[in-house]
Amino acid sequence: MSQEVIRGIALPPPAQAGDPLASVDTPSLVLDLAAFEANLRTMQAWADRHEVALRPHAKAHKCPEIARRQLALGARGICCQKVSEAVPFVAAGITDIHISNEVVGPAKLRLLGQLARAAKLSVCVDNAANLVQISQAMAAAGAEIDVLVEVDVGQGRCGVSDDATVLALAQQARALPGVNFVGLQAYHGSVQHFRTREERAAVCRQAARIAASYQLLLRESGIACDIITGGGTGSVEFDAASGVYTELQAGSYAFMDGDYGANEWDGPLAFQNSLFVLSTVMSTPAPDRVILDAGLKSTTAECGPPAIHGAQGLQYAAINDEHGVVRVAAGAPVPALGDTLLLVPSHVDPTFNLHDGLVVYRDGIVRDIWEISARGFSR
Amino acid sequence: MSQEVIRGIALPPPAQAGDPLASVDTPSLVLDLAAFEANLRTMQAWADRHEVALRPHAKAHKCPEIARRQLALGARGICCQKVSEAVPFVAAGITDIHISNEVVGPAKLRLLGQLARAAKLSVCVDNAANLVQISQAMAAAGAEIDVLVEVDVGQGRCGVSDDATVLALAQQARALPGVNFVGLQAYHGSVQHFRTREERAAVCRQAARIAASYQLLLRESGIACDIITGGGTGSVEFDAASGVYTELQAGSYAFMDGDYGANEWDGPLAFQNSLFVLSTVMSTPAPDRVILDAGLKSTTAECGPPAIHGAQGLQYAAINDEHGVVRVAAGAPVPALGDTLLLVPSHVDPTFNLHDGLVVYRDGIVRDIWEISARGFSR
Repeated sequence: MSQEVIRGIALPPPAQAGDPLASVDTPSLVLDLAAFEANLRTMQAWADRHEVALRPHAKAHKCPEIARRQLALGARGICCQKVSEAVPFVAAGITDIHISNEVVGPAKLRLLGQLARAAKLSVCVDNAANLVQISQAMAAAGAEIDVLVEVDVGQGRCGVSDDATVLALAQQARALPGVNFVGLQAYHGSVQHFRTREERAAVCRQAARIAASYQLLLRESGIACDIITGGGTGSVEFDAASGVYTELQAGSYAFMDGDYGANEWDGPLAFQNSLFVLSTVMSTPAPDRVILDAGLKSTTAECGPPAIHGAQGLQYAAINDEHGVVRVAAGAPVPALGDTLLLVPSHVDPTFNLHDGLVVYRDGIVRDIWEISARGFSR
Repeated sequence: MSQEVIRGIALPPPAQAGDPLASVDTPSLVLDLAAFEANLRTMQAWADRHEVALRPHAKAHKCPEIARRQLALGARGICCQKVSEAVPFVAAGITDIHISNEVVGPAKLRLLGQLARAAKLSVCVDNAANLVQISQAMAAAGAEIDVLVEVDVGQGRCGVSDDATVLALAQQARALPGVNFVGLQAYHGSVQHFRTREERAAVCRQAARIAASYQLLLRESGIACDIITGGGTGSVEFDAASGVYTELQAGSYAFMDGDYGANEWDGPLAFQNSLFVLSTVMSTPAPDRVILDAGLKSTTAECGPPAIHGAQGLQYAAINDEHGVVRVAAGAPVPALGDTLLLVPSHVDPTFNLHDGLVVYRDGIVRDIWEISARGFSR
């Protein structure tokens, strides 16, 4: 990130390559490259072993440099969750993007057409009128797009949940110009955080059965259905092994967070914390309490406050807009004013969405700052 | 906001002046100007009536255009919570800024010095070593800064909580070059959301007593202590009337939100909802459920999901990263695909921090888009 200069006042970047991690200005989102790279390799190896494509979800990180590294290791393409979110990735030269969501409204459909001219794009549908609009948008843009019917495999969010509608949408997509029916999206969001492996395994089995049943229905009707896409960090172990999914959409595995950390991970797949918010002790008002400079505007709290990484006797007890109240256990060393601490975000995706840059480090030394180019691209 | 063009792909702004509100691209943060202006007038009138200065907190909105309108109505200056947050406001020509927080660390102190050369700045201290560093930073920058000792009036966050330290810091500030002791910050954050007026009144009385006691201590020691600053939207009714506070720091009053809306407001002060997230129905999968395109990346949920404004029989029941699940009560009209709904954020400050622009409207017509210039300025 270049230095911004406003009225002669410079707001320099939080760090320079070569700086020690502890000297990075705070709060800053930071990435441990060694742990990150290990996570990428673990997931790609899991996908390869099961002969399933990995299409990591860029909604988790919104950072083209991260997507490039996932692709370099063998990922087939990426997912984006919003049509606007895809713009910085297309601009960065990433040309195979699945919009894993419905795209509704004239401004969004115009943008979808523009993007489909510049990249190999696919999109979800669960509504006949919306499918007609997508076809019209492609005609207006002179573009084509792959279409996947989203089916509800148990989450109860978007998606079709009966045979007749799945079949009708697939047939409609085959008949309309500018859209190519290629398969089904069968994503189950809520299973990702079911805590025991046993629960996750059972729900994933059921989701895979529902997806397979729709696929069979389509094949019996003479409709090829080559792609079944879905899966997340908490479910890929089972999705990959199901034999039903052809693509995995996991995103958080590259970073881990408090919410995923609370899952039971006693199976063959495990990931390390690579993502942290670096924070400074800005007040030491009492022997049992210090105050950090990172609050809700640096790490989100819908899944609870962050954890303090590798610190004994310290608990991030209360989160305010710009402050964190840390309780110091009796007998534990009290951090000093100006000390820095690494926080483990409780939820990766919305935390990335708070930051414009990611300070990446190896062996305790800053190596680079990567732009989180799609931050705020929520339309 | 100007149009961004990336590789020939344009991401246009979400609206143009003259557009009807319902055609704004979503999710977008939108402001009802009539309600906003009424809120500004109500608070300024309350401060004027009690002969207390209003210094609205810009951490709530991060938007220089909003600060300008508060100043035009009579506000003395503004507050910022972070030193970097002040940069866009100084750049916008706002010259009287209180940093209502401790500023710790070399990069931040350098920036504080630069800002203090460009604007009339004040800052909080609660630590003797930090005060020395501020003095040194002012010497390095060739600047001066006003200093307020932050005292803990019951919140248990930052701040000094004994006579000896308050007195020592004030004396130290008077002795050091580049820093001018001007008073006390006596802010109580947690009282803002105590639900009953009675609780808030009692805690505010106690906070004012503590602040007044420190002020008396300083005066008895021959130290002028002209400013007592503090107060928020939930406490200003009592703070203004206390006779102790000379400045009010409220911010959310201009917008209101779900968390403040849950307070009891049966006193003389009341504010209207002026801030919403406009959202589109992007999926209608079942008669009792529709899905919105605004989730955690458009409105934060640490205080619960948003409410749906003016809609009967609709409940925003579950919030995901980019989706909202809305339950439709039996017999209630089911929103159609593409319909837009106004959401009331549950918490103003971090929600502003998700958006780069604020679409402002009057009589249902878009008038302008204001830049949220300090979004992400958390250092």
